[in-house]
Amino acid sequence: MEDIKQYMKSVGQQARAASRVMAQADTAVKNRALLAIADAILNSSAALIAANAKDIAAAKTNGLDAASVDRLTLTEKTVRGMAEGLQQIATLPDLIGAISEMNYRPSGIQVGKMRVPLGVIGIIYESRPNVTADAAGLCLKSGNAAILRGGSEAIHSNQAIAACVHTGLKAAGLPETAVQVVTTTDRAAVGELITMKEYVDVIVPRGGKSLIARISADAKVPVIKHLDGICHVYIDDEADLVKAIRIADNAKTHRYGVCNAMETLLVHANVAAKVLPELCKIYLDKNVELRGDDAARKLVAQMSAATIDDWRTEYLAPILSVRVVANLDEAIDHINTYSSQHTDSIVTENYSKAMRFLREVDSASVMVNASTRFADGFEYGLGAEIGISTDKIHARGPVGLEGLTSQKYIVLGSGQIRV
Amino acid sequence: MEDIKQYMKSVGQQARAASRVMAQADTAVKNRALLAIADAILNSSAALIAANAKDIAAAKTNGLDAASVDRLTLTEKTVRGMAEGLQQIATLPDLIGAISEMNYRPSGIQVGKMRVPLGVIGIIYESRPNVTADAAGLCLKSGNAAILRGGSEAIHSNQAIAACVHTGLKAAGLPETAVQVVTTTDRAAVGELITMKEYVDVIVPRGGKSLIARISADAKVPVIKHLDGICHVYIDDEADLVKAIRIADNAKTHRYGVCNAMETLLVHANVAAKVLPELCKIYLDKNVELRGDDAARKLVAQMSAATIDDWRTEYLAPILSVRVVANLDEAIDHINTYSSQHTDSIVTENYSKAMRFLREVDSASVMVNASTRFADGFEYGLGAEIGISTDKIHARGPVGLEGLTSQKYIVLGSGQIRV
Repeated sequence: MEDIKQYMKSVGQQARAASRVMAQADTAVKNRALLAIADAILNSSAALIAANAKDIAAAKTNGLDAASVDRLTLTEKTVRGMAEGLQQIATLPDLIGAISEMNYRPSGIQVGKMRVPLGVIGIIYESRPNVTADAAGLCLKSGNAAILRGGSEAIHSNQAIAACVHTGLKAAGLPETAVQVVTTTDRAAVGELITMKEYVDVIVPRGGKSLIARISADAKVPVIKHLDGICHVYIDDEADLVKAIRIADNAKTHRYGVCNAMETLLVHANVAAKVLPELCKIYLDKNVELRGDDAARKLVAQMSAATIDDWRTEYLAPILSVRVVANLDEAIDHINTYSSQHTDSIVTENYSKAMRFLREVDSASVMVNASTRFADGFEYGLGAEIGISTDKIHARGPVGLEGLTSQKYIVLGSGQIRV
Repeated sequence: MEDIKQYMKSVGQQARAASRVMAQADTAVKNRALLAIADAILNSSAALIAANAKDIAAAKTNGLDAASVDRLTLTEKTVRGMAEGLQQIATLPDLIGAISEMNYRPSGIQVGKMRVPLGVIGIIYESRPNVTADAAGLCLKSGNAAILRGGSEAIHSNQAIAACVHTGLKAAGLPETAVQVVTTTDRAAVGELITMKEYVDVIVPRGGKSLIARISADAKVPVIKHLDGICHVYIDDEADLVKAIRIADNAKTHRYGVCNAMETLLVHANVAAKVLPELCKIYLDKNVELRGDDAARKLVAQMSAATIDDWRTEYLAPILSVRVVANLDEAIDHINTYSSQHTDSIVTENYSKAMRFLREVDSASVMVNASTRFADGFEYGLGAEIGISTDKIHARGPVGLEGLTSQKYIVLGSGQIRV
């Protein structure tokens, strides 16, 4: 235990020192490092897959479930994907050093802001080795140092990827300590990482809800986190029903296990009889289990009764809860009560109702006439995504490179003093 | 203890409910409330001063020091000042609902951001009753609900001001629970306030360093905080020495007890002999105690020896530490090691050195040829200031109304689905 504390302290100190170098690194140098890491990964494909084989063998011995083994597995294709991801990050604009809003004040000073890295980012994730390359790339491009702590099942894969990252950093003349992959699988290391305020500026946990909830509860360092994705589509009585059915179908059935999938459908009472039977036929044809309130069940025989727990559940599965509401107020009220403040969408042709929904729904992404599935850093044009925040502080919604930065004030004077 | 828990829970629930109303309140309604509160304060001047007299009597009985009694005291002038502060907040632009960066994406959706309140702000402060009116005004204008917890010595004054706030909110048709002033002086109330994550979105502590450090250590709710103000001025060898002396004088002696006062002066070795004797004469004439390194002491006889602790100390007093440095690198290194990352300034006519200082000094405000005393929400044009943040997450440097808000994504579609 004392060893882990010492080890993590030394990791933290090295990260802090490296972060000062990274903050000053030129755009060209950072891009060179990203491309060199991509090259190292491509050149090490066989070695990465061999290291990964050890993790998979151990995982199977330990009885890891098939889905987890699948996420853990590296193939030539996923290795190429990691390299392409890094090459893509290299093409993104460099936000660091950008100066904005420089205005003169009556005192004669000119005041504005400069974008700067946060410093040291701690990323804690489960057993998906490709996150190691992805997270390293995003932290590097945004001028931060990174401490990465992946799932213990992926330890050999992650160390092999770390070697490629270090090769690339070195080739570009950047400190290898700019990206450190924690070498111990001891859980105490996570406890240290999330409480080392002097060495770590922000923690980004990536993974299941229980991991994130545990980290948030114990962290002393600020956490950019994503909890539930309980997303809603509300079909208004003034909706274009063709759009409504397309959107409600897509939001639920495009992918089931994702955070921006719809989990509850709200339908205005005046159009429920017109829209629900047709829409529910689509769901039933795709084997989506339906749970509804009394009004909805009167229209669709195959619907079981929804309980209050259904309104609060992120299924991440082919299950949908359905509620018929009397009006827009009831829809907004339902959403602001049960939504996880992730993404909610209204389908309506009525201008005033669209504006009210946009203003009054208190979620990270609020949409009109679009599928909730669009809530995503790439779809929003951020170029990359480190995660989706359900917090309100610092970053809300899809978090790209900008979420790993801050702004400092800069003042340009010509000898001014305060009088 | 159980009573306090119940009481704070009910305060939190009422604040959360009120925050939903406040988030939708029109600009005109919010301004009407601010002006009505100002009127109520002006009309209650005598009552406020009478309530304040009880606090002062108790403070004197309890042996509170003279400076604290001074800060606690309300006069007709300070009462007028509170009202004027609220009237000024009413004139500031309303940030809530502002839509920006709406761009079309290849999918056909249009994506951008809408500025929204954080929700419920908890403000914890010491015995300055005017903060009650000020904090209430800032939270109200930014569409948030507020829970205010002032120092126990000011309890009668704060409750009297709270009555005026409630009169004004009611007059404008807003819920009185939008601003709640905690009625118990039990310290356990603070412990509840800073851990009620479900009811409070951010804590802003205002007061001395020990208060803020204690709150940060125990808080589960995010804290926008200000710790030390160890500010530096670096006089470069290519400085205009007339500007340098004016700035270094002003940064130290304009006011001593403020967070943006200079605490350590760094001087390039090549100009130390030219600038230090003249500048130190000014300091000594103003009774500023000087503590320096060996090189500085050789030039100014009245200087005592600085220890490493001096570099780390926020004096908030007529004391200055002085160090002679070999070059810009040494200056930046000293600042990034010992600065509290609040405000640091370079005096130079050299373009490249100015640019390097701006980029490489990792502080909330970085200045060229200007006094550190300018680091202030009003001087920066924010119109109001809830505090100065030394954090990097969410808000850095002077925090105005914008720091009490967040941005959500909004998506305008015309039936798009994800393919």
